[in-house]
Amino acid sequence: MSAPGSPDADPRFGSRLSVEQVEEGSELAPKFDAAGLIPCVTTDFHSGEVLMVAVMNREALARTIETGEAHYFSRSRQQLWHKGATSGLIQRVVEMRIDDDQDCVWLRVEIAGGASCHVGYRSCFYRRVPVGADRTQGTALEFTEHEKAFDPKAVYGDAPNPTRL
Amino acid sequence: MSAPGSPDADPRFGSRLSVEQVEEGSELAPKFDAAGLIPCVTTDFHSGEVLMVAVMNREALARTIETGEAHYFSRSRQQLWHKGATSGLIQRVVEMRIDDDQDCVWLRVEIAGGASCHVGYRSCFYRRVPVGADRTQGTALEFTEHEKAFDPKAVYGDAPNPTRL
Repeated sequence: MSAPGSPDADPRFGSRLSVEQVEEGSELAPKFDAAGLIPCVTTDFHSGEVLMVAVMNREALARTIETGEAHYFSRSRQQLWHKGATSGLIQRVVEMRIDDDQDCVWLRVEIAGGASCHVGYRSCFYRRVPVGADRTQGTALEFTEHEKAFDPKAVYGDAPNPTRL
Repeated sequence: MSAPGSPDADPRFGSRLSVEQVEEGSELAPKFDAAGLIPCVTTDFHSGEVLMVAVMNREALARTIETGEAHYFSRSRQQLWHKGATSGLIQRVVEMRIDDDQDCVWLRVEIAGGASCHVGYRSCFYRRVPVGADRTQGTALEFTEHEKAFDPKAVYGDAPNPTRL
């Protein structure tokens, strides 16, 4: 699923020539790691909630930019992942941002159905970790969502669970 | 900076025994990658804006939980990084969340000074990437912040820039 040609020759993205250009310039020149991936944070455009953190390869980033729908790279399936292709929970990109050194992407999305997590919750981050002085009240994780937004079995059927121990 | 003893023996975190326990349980049992790191997304508690994406090792995660102040692991300096120790821009953790498979952390923070990015902007994600139909108007990155929140030279002096090409 990687782009044809060598990474440096990829005409879809700029070359990284100087720190100033990368940090202060107006050309998209993303840095992919040794595995050809860049992390991506996805938030709900309306609530601001972090929905998920995933990775993109060059193809996923290029398709997201072209289509305005979130594409990622699935490490468990080792393939391009058009989010929502199975579940119907397509993510429409309202805004894409890139960070200072251009090694991380932020997507602000609207989701059909309002849910994103394979477990059935709205966000993947449905549990709070008590921190600092709050730990005197207990250290157990607290659920921030009490009902699932959808039934994962009905949506995903027998597809393998992506969680790895 | 890693914890004493083998990772499995670390009494600060739970063991990962089953998918159900990890996804639906109330015990913190984080997954660190082969390098001993877990990614962390940090958002501004008030604006909801994504400020930065970094990584934590076991020590950084444990200290963040204990102290209620964000600690990360600096890959460029290969050491524990108490955010704000140099700049004064300490991040107070209002809420910590963990994701479904417990391989990613989300911190919602308040920042003294309101800024987070080493380039001087409030957020590291100060540039928008035009996506989809918006690209007919141009493909250049658009700045979302037009003034720096602080002068990085005054705050960081001659410390090496962490951006890598």
